[in-house]
Amino acid sequence: MQPVTYQPIGVVESPFEAPEDVPRPGAEPVEASGRVLLEESYEPGLQGLAEFSHIVVLSHLHEVTDTRLTVRPMGGDPVGIFATSGPPRPNPIGQSVLRLDGIEGTRLSVSNLDLIDGTPVLDIKPYAPKGPNSDEIEIGWMADL
Amino acid sequence: MQPVTYQPIGVVESPFEAPEDVPRPGAEPVEASGRVLLEESYEPGLQGLAEFSHIVVLSHLHEVTDTRLTVRPMGGDPVGIFATSGPPRPNPIGQSVLRLDGIEGTRLSVSNLDLIDGTPVLDIKPYAPKGPNSDEIEIGWMADL
Repeated sequence: MQPVTYQPIGVVESPFEAPEDVPRPGAEPVEASGRVLLEESYEPGLQGLAEFSHIVVLSHLHEVTDTRLTVRPMGGDPVGIFATSGPPRPNPIGQSVLRLDGIEGTRLSVSNLDLIDGTPVLDIKPYAPKGPNSDEIEIGWMADL
Repeated sequence: MQPVTYQPIGVVESPFEAPEDVPRPGAEPVEASGRVLLEESYEPGLQGLAEFSHIVVLSHLHEVTDTRLTVRPMGGDPVGIFATSGPPRPNPIGQSVLRLDGIEGTRLSVSNLDLIDGTPVLDIKPYAPKGPNSDEIEIGWMADL
């Protein structure tokens, strides 16, 4: 298949300098705050976004250099990388749900930030859960966390 | 910023031949079924995924040829593309929540399929909502749908 090339639309400004600084995902959302700085030409694309409380940020986890097809979350049993959201995936696209605290021009203030400083941003979508009802969802090994 | 290049991990097999065949997103999930066919070398990456009822598929919406920074969902008022999940975005990455009906090797049977036949697949993650509580979420213009 043909490779796919994207031009980042912006970059993350974060207090976390390196992947090991980011708290491990757990029951509690990460409390850190920072900003998503978009290219100024994208300002019209943000119209109406400020009325959403949360956004999904798709990012390129640029610090990932290796791919592992199985990982051991929390040191437990091995699990396939596609059954986790861990970083060392074949295409290291991060999917973060962030609280949107404000927008000034093309600078978005966010919290629950789990990305490191300098992470390239590929896309922003509104967070509007309309998936299956929670009683219809099974979450495999994550149910044991 | 540097461009980012990904190699697709697989492809979608769908009854929808063209974007206009896919039902518009609405309150009800799309009922169509199909398959996600991954490269065989990725089989170890699927370990444990069958225990999840739903998956997130990140895909390259390869039929998107134009970018529009504002759109009119359902013909209504203009909204920035980043305040929607519509296709004509700067980096047309689709994010689909699909029901996982079964896995045979690297062939995943899925429903609620909203992608067209031949769509390149970039990543698969388990669907395990752990975002904000629903009473903390504001969804902007989507609240009027």
